Formats: sequence, C-alpha cells, structure tokens
Amino acid sequence: MTLTHVDAQGTARMVDISAKAATRREAVTEGFIAIAAPTLAAIAANSLAKGDVIATARIAGIMAAKRTADLIPLCHPLPIDAVTVDLAIEAEGIRVTANVVTTHGTGVEMEALTATSVALLTIYDMAKASDRAMVISGIRLLRKSGGRSGEWRAPD
Amino acid sequence: MTLTHVDAQGTARMVDISAKAATRREAVTEGFIAIAAPTLAAIAANSLAKGDVIATARIAGIMAAKRTADLIPLCHPLPIDAVTVDLAIEAEGIRVTANVVTTHGTGVEMEALTATSVALLTIYDMAKASDRAMVISGIRLLRKSGGRSGEWRAPD
Amino acid sequence: MTLTHVDAQGTARMVDISAKAATRREAVTEGFIAIAAPTLAAIAANSLAKGDVIATARIAGIMAAKRTADLIPLCHPLPIDAVTVDLAIEAEGIRVTANVVTTHGTGVEMEALTATSVALLTIYDMAKASDRAMVISGIRLLRKSGGRSGEWRAPD
Amino acid sequence: MTLTHVDAQGTARMVDISAKAATRREAVTEGFIAIAAPTLAAIAANSLAKGDVIATARIAGIMAAKRTADLIPLCHPLPIDAVTVDLAIEAEGIRVTANVVTTHGTGVEMEALTATSVALLTIYDMAKASDRAMVISGIRLLRKSGGRSGEWRAPD
Amino acid sequence: MTLTHVDAQGTARMVDISAKAATRREAVTEGFIAIAAPTLAAIAANSLAKGDVIATARIAGIMAAKRTADLIPLCHPLPIDAVTVDLAIEAEGIRVTANVVTTHGTGVEMEALTATSVALLTIYDMAKASDRAMVISGIRLLRKSGGRSGEWRAPD
Amino acid sequence: MTLTHVDAQGTARMVDISAKAATRREAVTEGFIAIAAPTLAAIAANSLAKGDVIATARIAGIMAAKRTADLIPLCHPLPIDAVTVDLAIEAEGIRVTANVVTTHGTGVEMEALTATSVALLTIYDMAKASDRAMVISGIRLLRKSGGRSGEWRAPD
Repeated sequence: MTLTHVDAQGTARMVDISAKAATRREAVTEGFIAIAAPTLAAIAANSLAKGDVIATARIAGIMAAKRTADLIPLCHPLPIDAVTVDLAIEAEGIRVTANVVTTHGTGVEMEALTATSVALLTIYDMAKASDRAMVISGIRLLRKSGGRSGEWRAPD
Repeated sequence: MTLTHVDAQGTARMVDISAKAATRREAVTEGFIAIAAPTLAAIAANSLAKGDVIATARIAGIMAAKRTADLIPLCHPLPIDAVTVDLAIEAEGIRVTANVVTTHGTGVEMEALTATSVALLTIYDMAKASDRAMVISGIRLLRKSGGRSGEWRAPD
Repeated sequence: MTLTHVDAQGTARMVDISAKAATRREAVTEGFIAIAAPTLAAIAANSLAKGDVIATARIAGIMAAKRTADLIPLCHPLPIDAVTVDLAIEAEGIRVTANVVTTHGTGVEMEALTATSVALLTIYDMAKASDRAMVISGIRLLRKSGGRSGEWRAPD
Repeated sequence: MTLTHVDAQGTARMVDISAKAATRREAVTEGFIAIAAPTLAAIAANSLAKGDVIATARIAGIMAAKRTADLIPLCHPLPIDAVTVDLAIEAEGIRVTANVVTTHGTGVEMEALTATSVALLTIYDMAKASDRAMVISGIRLLRKSGGRSGEWRAPD
Repeated sequence: MTLTHVDAQGTARMVDISAKAATRREAVTEGFIAIAAPTLAAIAANSLAKGDVIATARIAGIMAAKRTADLIPLCHPLPIDAVTVDLAIEAEGIRVTANVVTTHGTGVEMEALTATSVALLTIYDMAKASDRAMVISGIRLLRKSGGRSGEWRAPD
Repeated sequence: MTLTHVDAQGTARMVDISAKAATRREAVTEGFIAIAAPTLAAIAANSLAKGDVIATARIAGIMAAKRTADLIPLCHPLPIDAVTVDLAIEAEGIRVTANVVTTHGTGVEMEALTATSVALLTIYDMAKASDRAMVISGIRLLRKSGGRSGEWRAPD
C-alpha cells in the first residue's frame, strides 16, 4: 500500500502569501472565439433569440473575475480594485480582453483569465443555437505588473 | 435618445424551456493547454509547489460543471446526472475532455464546456509560477446527444 | 388565510413539498426606483461612469433569480424554465418587471421578486455616484399562476 | 453631481479604486414591508408555518450583505467589519434597518441595501402563504460616512 | 513516468444516476457539540455577544443543505423538498438533528450531514469567544429511506 | 406577546472588528472519521467507484475554507493567505488536519474548522456506498496564534 498523497510532497496546497507585500498588481489577458459568418453577423446585428451577446458576455466576465477563488481550488481570495472586459468583433469571431487590478500580496492573472474564459463561454452559450462548431482559443496572459517578479509581457 | 435595450428585441432573456421534454442529454467537450517542456515534465513528476495538478484540475472541472448556471447568465439551472473530466498529458501540453449527462428539457453543452475551461484554468494556476506563457486553445463541443436536435458531432 | 398552527416553538423549517405535483407555475413581479431627473437623463443617455445601466441591471436580475434559494433561507431550490426582466424608463425613475417560469412542486414568486430587487439594486449601484437619494418602492407580486392555489392577481 | 463622461460606448466596468485610501466607512439603510393585519399578528405571535420570521429575516439579511459582490455586477468585493440588521414590527408592517461597516477603498451602501432587501424578501417568503399582497417600499440609504465624500444623510 | 491519475481506475468522477428512478428519499442525521457549562448556560440564556445561537444555527444548517453540491465535489445537485434542523440543549452540549427529503434519483444523506455539520460549526462560531475547547462529535447518519437500497438504520 | 428577538439583546449580529489590528493569525484544527476496515482498505487502495478519496477530500477542504463566510452566518469575510489540509490514514479511520493563515483583524478558526469538516464529509460521500455507518468525531481547534488573545492550545 503506497500513500503518496499523504506525503508532504506533491499534495495540493494554497501557498502562503502572508510574507508578501500588498502592492498594486495588474493583469491583462485575451482570448478568441471563432464564429461562422452568419452567426457573427447576427451577433453584430443583435438579432439572436437570447439577446445582446456583447453586453451580456461583458457582465458575465466581470462577475466571473469575482468568483475566481470559488472556482480555482488553490487561488487566494482577494479584494479586486478594478475589472474591465472588452469585446471586439473581428472578421472571424470575437476577441475578449480583460484587465484586472488588485492591491494585495498576490497577482490577478487567474482573475483576468477567468473573466476572459467566462465571457467567451457566454458568447458560446448565446450563439450556440445557430452555430455549435464555434471554437475558443488563444486564452493567454498578455501582460502583468507588480509584485516581486515585476513586469512580464507575452512573447512576440 | 435611443433606448434599444428597452425594446423587446435584442434584450437578454433566459428562453422558455417549459414545453420541452425532459430526456437524457449528454455533451462531450475538449480543450488543450500548451505547456513548455520543463513545466510539463514537472507536472508529470508531480513536483510543482502547488501540488498534484491532474487530480486538482479534475476536481475543479467537476465542481465547475455544477456552477455553470451561476456563471453563464442565460443558462438554465438543472440537475446533473453525471460528470467526468479526463486529463491526458500529451507531447506539448495537457488535453482535457469533459462528459456531462442530464435528464432535463435542455442540454448540457455549457456545463461540459465550463468543466473543460475551469480544469484548464486550474492547470494554468498551478503551473504559472514556472511558465506564464501557457496558452489555452481548442475549447469546443465534440459531441452532443438527446433533445429535439438529437445527435451532433464536430466536423472532422 | 391559512395559518397551519405548528408546534409551540415556531422554529424555521423548509416545508415539505414532496407531495405536491410538478406543474407549470409562473410569477410576475414589479418594482420601481425613483431617480432625480439629471441622473435619469444620464442613464437614458448611457453616460454614467459605470456604463450601461439597463443592460447590466437586466443581467443582474436574471442571474439573481437563479440565486434565490441561496439567499432566502426557506426557499426550495428548483429548476427555472424561463426568466425575463424588463426595464422601462418612466418620467420619475425606472420600472422593473420580472417574469419567471418553473415546472415544479412550488411556485416562483420569490425568484421573480428577487430578480426584481436585484435589478433595482443594480440600478442604484450604477447611478449612486450621481444620486444617493434614490428610493426603491412598490416591489410586489403582480400575478401568479399554477399550483393548487391557481391564478392570483394583485388587487386593482 | 459628477458624471465622468467616459468613452462613447458606455460599457459596464468595475471602476478602479486602487488609488483610494482604505478608511473606515459605514452605511445605514432602511426599507419597509406592508403586511395585512392578521398576517402581521401571526408574525408577532410567531405562529406561521415557516417559523420565526424575525430571526430568520435578520440572518438572511446579514448573510446577504456578504453576497453583495456576487449579486451586483459592478460592486467591489471587500472585507466587511460589521453587519447589524434590525427589524421593528410597526402598525402596518415591518421596518428593516441595516448597518454595515468596512475598512476599505470604497463604501458599503450596496451591502447595507442588499441586506435590507433580502431581509424584506425573506419576510415576504415566510408570510406569503397568508398574504400575497404585501408590498416592499422605501428601500433607501439613510446615512453614510467615510471616504472622500464623507458624511451624507438622507433629506428630511 | 507513470500517470496513474489518467487511468480510468481511481479517478474522481460524479457517478451516473440517469438510470435511477426519481423516488421520495429521506435522510436523518445527527451530531453533537460538547460545551463547557458556563458557555452552555449563556447559550440557553441567549446572552452571548453574537446573539441567538439556536435560531442562527438552525438557519445556517437549513441553508447549508442547499449548498451541499457546491461543497462536496462529487455530490449531485438536486431539488430539495424539505429540510428541518432541530437543536436540543443537553447536559453537556447541544445535539443537532437534520432531516432532508428529495424526490430524485439519488439520496440526501450528504445534504443532511452537511446541514448538521454547518449548524454545529455555527454554534462553535457564536460561542468560541467564551469557550475555544468545544468538540464536535458523533456526526452520523441515523436513518435513510427510499431508492434501490431502501430503508437503512444506524446500528444500536 | 413577547418579542425578545426585536430587543437589542440576544439578536444575531456580526460583531465590529474595525478597531482590531490586521495581524498574522493562524489556526490549526483536526477531526476524524471512523471507517470500517474493508472500506478503509479500499480507500487506501484507491479502488472506490467514486475515485481518489484522499486527493478529493483535500481539495474540498481547501475550497471550503474559502466558503466559510458564505456558510457561517456571523463570520467575517476575509482574505486567506494559506490553507493546507492533511489526511492521514490511521488504523480505524482517517484523520484530517487543517491549517489556515490570514492577515486580518479576526482569526481563522472557523475557516480551519470548516475545511476540516468538509474534507471529512467528502470522505463520507465517496465511501458511503460501501459503509453508511461511518462516524465523524473529534472536530476541534488544536492551536491558534495571533490577535489580542495570542497563542492558545487545546488542553492535553
């Protein structure tokens, strides 16, 4: 009988941030959902049965940022100072960008990624009656600042 | 002054499913997170500081399926009969597949997509101390069955 | 008026609905928030710093309907078949109307009242930087149907 | 009245409070529910089937204060230092007063208004079997203190 | 490199209940918290600073039953038909009993155990300023009925 | 007619911590679940149908620590700096130990007790198909530090 999970090594834990300084930290993330042309046109024309995709996805993304610690097991719950979620209709789909700010001992990359993901999922939900083949891709951190590791930018 | 949002057309709404039959419905979705080789090896060796990535992401995905209606504004809350979330370590990252079943008047595509997305975000969270450039992609519906529209499979 | 006289303690309990038939039930509720003229004009012009009041309040109301059993201690959790929340800008404020449908053993009055209340609170939140003296009033059930007690309409 | 004129879109955003000082802030709110005499007497006698209305509504209100950022899309999540919810049986109904305190960069008006609203909704829920025509009104901010705008009191 | 977690065997999953009949199921559970005499007397006299322990713990327990699927990873979300939580002050502490009913394809043992546990934790929270050495024990299933396995009663 | 609940004395309230210093506070708690030998062996061998008990219970405990203020009515919502949940398979069951850290004006005893309780409940859930007679006991505070009352250790 091997009980590797009981060992101190390898077990899930919420790492201790109590020694870290509460400083201003910001994260910017993006993601994309590819949408067939007729459905994308319907979104742009706000003519889908479920209603206004852009406004609804934005609100869903902002609210999801606040639920991050409920969803991601080892994320620290933290106060959020600001959230913006932007949606841009492009030629082949919709690009979502999220920006989150905190003043805390850890960063908000997960909050921004969660906002981006849930905004994209909300688009899928509202448009899926006309296009089930939509694909979500390119969810990534674009930039972060603050904390001991300081500024980071995505390559290229 | 134009108040298009107040019009009946284009406003967000949770569409009425009370006339739909409660039948067995299933959805299968997938997604992928690209991870640099050293970080991927550390995940496989279960040597990251935050602990066991695979087990934690699976639990996070299963729990997220149950939070779908809390996150996606126009999703119907519904009983869930089964959820499985599988993770496969591939050459350049980790593939997540989710399978959700309900017996209800609407499908569970969003529950499976949410499970997939949150499992992927959990991987990002646990590995981000060693690799911030991970990218999540290919989140999509693979297959659904049940309901009036019946069976659907992703192209190719 | 029936006041089933329970045991002497009068302790809180979630009453048993297991013997009640799952039938289609609907509830319609309304409420109003009085807003000073300049602020109301800013809402109508969509020029408040927090953004689009009408779309945001509608989404908040719909999502709140789904959180009712989390908020109201003795409410039964139930599947919701449909939710619509309408907002009408009137001369002295905004009127919110909510309509909720379920197929279950108990009604959705609380879900519709909660949707109405949270939509009104969201309006307050978004406009409070310009008007702290807004007052919410007239939250009430307009109509319900379904269940053993059948149709009910508010007097006058 | 300040209406920072933002970009043309008027999109929803959680405004940035990272530059604001964390100071002690307090908000006091009230609301009222009109209840028919026989039902009000039953509440006072604690003889309703659902149990003790006053104690249950108080707890519901306190707990709701903590859920405010989950419900109101653009509210900042924040630590809460204190919550009290008082209920007073008056001649024609019940008056609810809530008092919330934080030490943060933004105020707690919404937390107090949410506590008040949910306490009132809980009363409705517990008493609705005997009186469906109850009306909730007069939900408003009575007083706030702290922050850059300092003390504010409701007119009259 | 061994990836036992990826194997079908041993991985966490929400088991499929879609083939099970929706029947009336009930579970009764209990638990106990040992409390020092002076603190127990203060609870009985309702003189603790945090207020009415019995009423608050009851509400907390009822509400927790509804949060079970949010807390316990592999629990199925289900409609709840009834919840009662009873508290009895005994010689050396407080006994909590919970009773939960559903009409669904799986039982409500976890809902009743969660209600019991959270009611006991609430007592601890409210009384801990006067007694930190309280111990919670004897949380167990007393009785269940319904479903394929039918009636079950705790031994002795 | 006595309305003691309306009196200022004895009513539930979230006590004011705004005057307390934000210092590092830590709490350690434990609890135990007695499990029949065959079921305990199956858990150790990771051969239960619901999957990996130890890893799942650990994640559930960590996530529950973050939900404490949602569950326990008068608990203050607070940032959490660290959570660890350890599980040890003993001769007659599984012992759960939780450690929680915050930097705030109040302690985290309830967060650690909630983590412990939910980890134990998760074990019950995953193993109940083979043993319904499991009993949870010995949930208690082992040690706390920080705050005005400083260090405290459980007797013996």
